[in-house]
Amino acid sequence: MLIVKKFGGSSVANKERIFNVARRCIEEYKNGSDVVVVLSAMGDTTDQLIAMAEDINPKAKKREMDMLLTTGEQVSAALMAMAMQALDVPAVSLNAFQVMMHSTSRYGNARFKRVETERILHELDSRKIVIVTGFQGVNKYDDITTLGRGGSDTTAVALAAALHADRCEIYTDVDGVFTADPRVVKNARKLDEVTYDEMLELASLGAKVLHNRSVEMAKKYNVELVVRSSLNDTEGTVVREGADMEKLLVTGVAADKNTARISVIGVLDKPGIAFNIFDTLAKNNINVDIILQSVGREGTKDISFTVAGDDMEHAIEILEKNKKRLTIKEVSCNPNVAKLSVVGAGMMSNPGVAAKMFEALYNSRVNINMISTSEIRITVLVDEKDIDKAMNAVHDGFAMGE
Amino acid sequence: MLIVKKFGGSSVANKERIFNVARRCIEEYKNGSDVVVVLSAMGDTTDQLIAMAEDINPKAKKREMDMLLTTGEQVSAALMAMAMQALDVPAVSLNAFQVMMHSTSRYGNARFKRVETERILHELDSRKIVIVTGFQGVNKYDDITTLGRGGSDTTAVALAAALHADRCEIYTDVDGVFTADPRVVKNARKLDEVTYDEMLELASLGAKVLHNRSVEMAKKYNVELVVRSSLNDTEGTVVREGADMEKLLVTGVAADKNTARISVIGVLDKPGIAFNIFDTLAKNNINVDIILQSVGREGTKDISFTVAGDDMEHAIEILEKNKKRLTIKEVSCNPNVAKLSVVGAGMMSNPGVAAKMFEALYNSRVNINMISTSEIRITVLVDEKDIDKAMNAVHDGFAMGE
Repeated sequence: MLIVKKFGGSSVANKERIFNVARRCIEEYKNGSDVVVVLSAMGDTTDQLIAMAEDINPKAKKREMDMLLTTGEQVSAALMAMAMQALDVPAVSLNAFQVMMHSTSRYGNARFKRVETERILHELDSRKIVIVTGFQGVNKYDDITTLGRGGSDTTAVALAAALHADRCEIYTDVDGVFTADPRVVKNARKLDEVTYDEMLELASLGAKVLHNRSVEMAKKYNVELVVRSSLNDTEGTVVREGADMEKLLVTGVAADKNTARISVIGVLDKPGIAFNIFDTLAKNNINVDIILQSVGREGTKDISFTVAGDDMEHAIEILEKNKKRLTIKEVSCNPNVAKLSVVGAGMMSNPGVAAKMFEALYNSRVNINMISTSEIRITVLVDEKDIDKAMNAVHDGFAMGE
Repeated sequence: MLIVKKFGGSSVANKERIFNVARRCIEEYKNGSDVVVVLSAMGDTTDQLIAMAEDINPKAKKREMDMLLTTGEQVSAALMAMAMQALDVPAVSLNAFQVMMHSTSRYGNARFKRVETERILHELDSRKIVIVTGFQGVNKYDDITTLGRGGSDTTAVALAAALHADRCEIYTDVDGVFTADPRVVKNARKLDEVTYDEMLELASLGAKVLHNRSVEMAKKYNVELVVRSSLNDTEGTVVREGADMEKLLVTGVAADKNTARISVIGVLDKPGIAFNIFDTLAKNNINVDIILQSVGREGTKDISFTVAGDDMEHAIEILEKNKKRLTIKEVSCNPNVAKLSVVGAGMMSNPGVAAKMFEALYNSRVNINMISTSEIRITVLVDEKDIDKAMNAVHDGFAMGE
């Protein structure tokens, strides 16, 4: 068995936790498995490094930022190797240069292009536990890149894919993937299995257990993912292709409060105008989500859409600046909204899901502002104040706790 | 002009000092020079990292130690690049992988084998200030090595040699190389020039301004070194081959209190015994300095020698363990001794120096225990309590303050 295990920053935040992780990996190693460990930076190291950088230059180039931040994982990887050596197990730490984790050039948000396996396989062959720095790559200029926040998940999956690992385990501070956020929905249930597509919908909808790109990559290379707790031995949630798995009608419900609604009012009702609006936003890296058009007065129309809450001000600024060209009469916005989604692979062959969801919301007096659907997801926009109530209502409506 | 500038950890210990260094480098850059900056880790970062490692594994492998420690220079290099960017000057930080500073394999104490220049020259061509992490190399296994304490000096000289730099400036917290330690000898005078050999003797004798290996390398590749203060604009001391320079009879006087005398008493007076003793010590990495043999009783002899104070206990342990094989009757030691040396290239052609030195010591009632000489150096062993008095006496005896 070859197993890739990824531990986040809080799992290696201090000496005690480092040794906990070391023991956990050693157990698997002593059972005869080859073990590759991917680590994030210790605790809040990354935030501290960012603060140092911002103190010196708030507009520091991302290339230098990546050079700075990647030291964090190198520290935790080296200390982990030392901890394993203290427990009499041979271990070696490797950074992105040593593994050769080839990435695209884009600093701060790079993607893996190719991952070499020679060095890791060589170290595994000599029965060492191999510890790899997460979150980082090397681009074609031989410069260090980072994958963006949560990128260590992607490092783990990329290595699991390249090494044809039997399993890729992502350790977090929760027991796995739940039918809903357990802090909001008391009877939320841990799922034994979800499909990649379900996980992708859940991840992008605020159930922040896995980095989205890592799930995409796991799906592409058919890597079996396990999400489990670093704090206990509970079996986690397996993410894999759903061929032989029970297809639940609805797998989970997720909420996303980082949402805002923007309305542009009185735009000319002629071809190309809507395209121009969304194209202008896209060119400024603003992602538009649910879209609703309605007919306005005198040959005009109103268009409403949602953006990430963080992007709202920037979006409005851009729309105001291009008001004339885009024939917009007025821009309004509402940050106090939230998205609620139900996700389930079983939905594809079952048309009654939407009706059931709307019924549950209606019975709880939750008003629906906008609706959007995909093959395995239904999303509604509700007032932010209603979101917890709505989540519980939908969770109960589909009896997800049972 | 291509100039390599090296700044130690205290020169980049905080934001203010980082900007001071940045401004200093930018001034040179704006005068049209190409500037390469070599940095150590900030302040006491290295000590902090060592403490973290020792807490986890006091016997950590040196490979992992080097992996850990080298993050320190990467942090200071990245922050320096950001500071220069904040001052609107293009700058780029490079680590040992990016430059390709090839070193021997020995972790914790590697030596440079070859330094590639392509990447640095490319960055200089695009008019960037290039900031290189000091103290680190990459060995043939693609693993990170360190050069040992003070190794950043060597990085600077290696780069200056490879790049055929016009000058290599080593910035410290003193104004340059002095005729004696100014804290001990009040009228110690800053030297304008010293030869490589003089600097080597002074460096190895406790005038800890430059890392010894860096001076050897500067001599080998004929790199003009300048030692100067990072705190003010005083012209420093130039270290170069002494062809056209005034050959002072005596350049400086240095003291080394980290010295201990060991005596082995009653060893058999037959060939090979002395060799065996020093060979045994050498195999345990103990450097023996001044040696004195004297005839003992009944076909035996006594041998006294000095070692570094830090090595004394280890040396005694080894000698006691091999007492029988080495035919030693008794081992005694004295840690309360110190070495005093006068150094000067002019000594070679001037036989009166030793006499003058002994006279100065005699006039001050300082007793000489042992003597050792090289072509350009005379060293005496004195009681530690006498060392400051002796240093002043010799400094005055040669009128070095004038």
